[in-house]
Amino acid sequence: MNFELNREFIEKLQEAIQQQNNEQLQQMVSELHPADIAEILGELDDDERQYLFGLLPSEITADIIVELEEDERGELLKDLPSQEIAHTVIEHMDSDDAADIISELPEEKQDEVLSNISDIEQAGDIVDLLNYAPDTAGGLMATELVSVNEDLTVRNCIEEIRKQASEVDEFFYVFVTDAQDILKGVLHLKKLLLADDNELIKNIIEDVRSVKTDDDSEEVANIMRKYDLVSVPVVDSIGRLKGRITIDDVVDVIKDEAEEDYQLMSGITGDIDSNDSVFKLTRARIPWLLIGLAGGILGSLVIGGFDSQLIQHPEMAFFIPLIAAMGGNVAIQSSSIIVQGLANNSLGFDSAGRKLVKEILVALVNGSVVALLALIYNIVMGQSFALCLTVSISLISVVLFAAIVGTSLPLAFNRIKIDPAVATGPFITTTNDIMGMVIYFFVSYQCYSWFQ
Amino acid sequence: MNFELNREFIEKLQEAIQQQNNEQLQQMVSELHPADIAEILGELDDDERQYLFGLLPSEITADIIVELEEDERGELLKDLPSQEIAHTVIEHMDSDDAADIISELPEEKQDEVLSNISDIEQAGDIVDLLNYAPDTAGGLMATELVSVNEDLTVRNCIEEIRKQASEVDEFFYVFVTDAQDILKGVLHLKKLLLADDNELIKNIIEDVRSVKTDDDSEEVANIMRKYDLVSVPVVDSIGRLKGRITIDDVVDVIKDEAEEDYQLMSGITGDIDSNDSVFKLTRARIPWLLIGLAGGILGSLVIGGFDSQLIQHPEMAFFIPLIAAMGGNVAIQSSSIIVQGLANNSLGFDSAGRKLVKEILVALVNGSVVALLALIYNIVMGQSFALCLTVSISLISVVLFAAIVGTSLPLAFNRIKIDPAVATGPFITTTNDIMGMVIYFFVSYQCYSWFQ
Repeated sequence: MNFELNREFIEKLQEAIQQQNNEQLQQMVSELHPADIAEILGELDDDERQYLFGLLPSEITADIIVELEEDERGELLKDLPSQEIAHTVIEHMDSDDAADIISELPEEKQDEVLSNISDIEQAGDIVDLLNYAPDTAGGLMATELVSVNEDLTVRNCIEEIRKQASEVDEFFYVFVTDAQDILKGVLHLKKLLLADDNELIKNIIEDVRSVKTDDDSEEVANIMRKYDLVSVPVVDSIGRLKGRITIDDVVDVIKDEAEEDYQLMSGITGDIDSNDSVFKLTRARIPWLLIGLAGGILGSLVIGGFDSQLIQHPEMAFFIPLIAAMGGNVAIQSSSIIVQGLANNSLGFDSAGRKLVKEILVALVNGSVVALLALIYNIVMGQSFALCLTVSISLISVVLFAAIVGTSLPLAFNRIKIDPAVATGPFITTTNDIMGMVIYFFVSYQCYSWFQ
Repeated sequence: MNFELNREFIEKLQEAIQQQNNEQLQQMVSELHPADIAEILGELDDDERQYLFGLLPSEITADIIVELEEDERGELLKDLPSQEIAHTVIEHMDSDDAADIISELPEEKQDEVLSNISDIEQAGDIVDLLNYAPDTAGGLMATELVSVNEDLTVRNCIEEIRKQASEVDEFFYVFVTDAQDILKGVLHLKKLLLADDNELIKNIIEDVRSVKTDDDSEEVANIMRKYDLVSVPVVDSIGRLKGRITIDDVVDVIKDEAEEDYQLMSGITGDIDSNDSVFKLTRARIPWLLIGLAGGILGSLVIGGFDSQLIQHPEMAFFIPLIAAMGGNVAIQSSSIIVQGLANNSLGFDSAGRKLVKEILVALVNGSVVALLALIYNIVMGQSFALCLTVSISLISVVLFAAIVGTSLPLAFNRIKIDPAVATGPFITTTNDIMGMVIYFFVSYQCYSWFQ
């Protein structure tokens, strides 16, 4: 039951596809988990994927479709008629997955698929879900849940749960509401098993943390993580139970947010992985390189502005990479701490001003250490006093400047609702490269004129 | 029931602590979730925390201790006698949390606490868990679970679950074993509710994905995420059920791994956040700055080696920041894709060679675009032909070199069991700064000698 995909398996499968050996193909995948089959499909090219997909039994089609990457899924669904998408795919899915997948379809196909769903109630649920923004609790939730009235007895409640359970794939908690559908609490299955048959449900329920339909998905993730929740009920603005979000969906949110921040810091736009095409990889990477180019050209203009300085003291050029790199490194260190703190909601309640003071202290310590070491090195190497001073004063100044920019920029971005993670990576290194050059040549101008 | 911590609350609390107004303090926190109280404690200084902690009812002490940050927890437990730690903290915890917290204690205190635990079976479980490496499935799992024999009937099974459930906080699946304790499958509570009383359990169980005690925790996280598992059974090498890992623990693993990679890329060593002390923040950041300094000095030696070149053509210095930045940016783009692919197990089955070829193609495209734009700019600016050529040829070469290093270094690190994320951030930018200078001055030497 513990399948692990390997290269030989894929090669054997590709051979069978080429030979159109359907019997062998069906045998190879028949026992596998839909997530494994989806992984296999992801390794095949478009034609192979199409072929294998056509052989799969229709009862697992929906489960596999859910697990695929968006572009692979789009490729497979493109050629299926709307009626078939409705009957073999959408109708076998939970409402949250169904809404996600319908929202990926082209506009005109969305309505066709929706009108082909046989169960009007399911279609209605999906239409309702499509109205929520995808990055809110409403956009994440599913409407399939088990809920009972607080006035039932344990015996009646078990009857009711039996009825509802046959409709729901899996459930971990029973939510309890009053007659107006207002969420009152949660019933742990353990309590239900241990309680007396005639006990009223309202006496054995527990308080439950809920989220609102318009709460941000990152906030939902933070709440579920903080309170170790496996499933969280979603209520509307007056507290009526609308759906539930399970932890597996939130794990994906956490993972995606982290990856997005990681890719932004590394100067990559868009969600890519190493299996994507050369074209997609190129397109995701060129924007930051162009910004880097523009920054480099600006930097060249700054240095060009001090060219008489440089002609007189060509040894100044030796330390250009050091000054540039130090500013970039410190700025990224500072900004990444802020970005991560914002993402985790762990910045605490210190004001921006206090954070900045702290960063400046850290920068002063680090800058002094680095500047002192550079000073010793330059003295040992017999550099001129002016150069020694220029490099060390510039290092402290650049480190200080970078720490201030690195701390305040993401905080400022966050306040004006720009993703603070944009203020990491190439953006901040480029800014600091340029400022580093301004500082370096300005300091050198002063130092050389004093100590000539 | 939806508490949200804010600054006023903290200030009011701090005031009450100063006035030693115990009644108000107890009233302020009495209704809160342990995770909220832990968050509050995290915002207080050591003395305030100690004071408030002393007022909390002992039945929630254990839950709060679990939620605290490691250093805050250490501070609080430092002054508690071993006997009290055993009775009021450890004995009220699940075995996995108990083992984690005992492992944080000083060596000599560990044995004292263990020998003070009243329940010998619990102490034995904890000792067993302490033997597993913390980053394995064994180190993550808890021994508290509900398991039944496959030969029971549904009626007997419910009886058995009732007995076991009173010992376990919360459970989502019932694991099913044979007489030798070998894991046979999982029983969904839904199936149990819907089944006939006399049905045999072995007829209604489902296959279950399990992990081995020595599986890596990152692997466990990937499996739970892939198969959308809320709880996964852990077995030993011959398949006997040893414990279970729940998704909330794995969410923390996923989050921690992502943060570690993020911090490594940003040049920060160790797990810090913006609330840490200036000393801790400084210590976590200085190592990479020193490496950056060493790299900068090496770079200065490289440029120094070409100083006659520089004296003749001081305009060469203008483009030093551009060349250095471009190499660093491309290298981080390349390495971060590999690091993320390795972490997600999503690199697929392309060989390292094929990945490299793809990266080289991407680099050629991006490098050509950047080089062409730089060429146009330099021609427009009326730079000498030799400089135009030097800058553009260097850009392509640096981009190519950076892509190759950025792709192969993390793959190589991974093969020799070094965390591939080390090959991101300042390490790779520094390497590429130096190589960028070597390439730039070498190319310029050639270009200037041809076109003089």
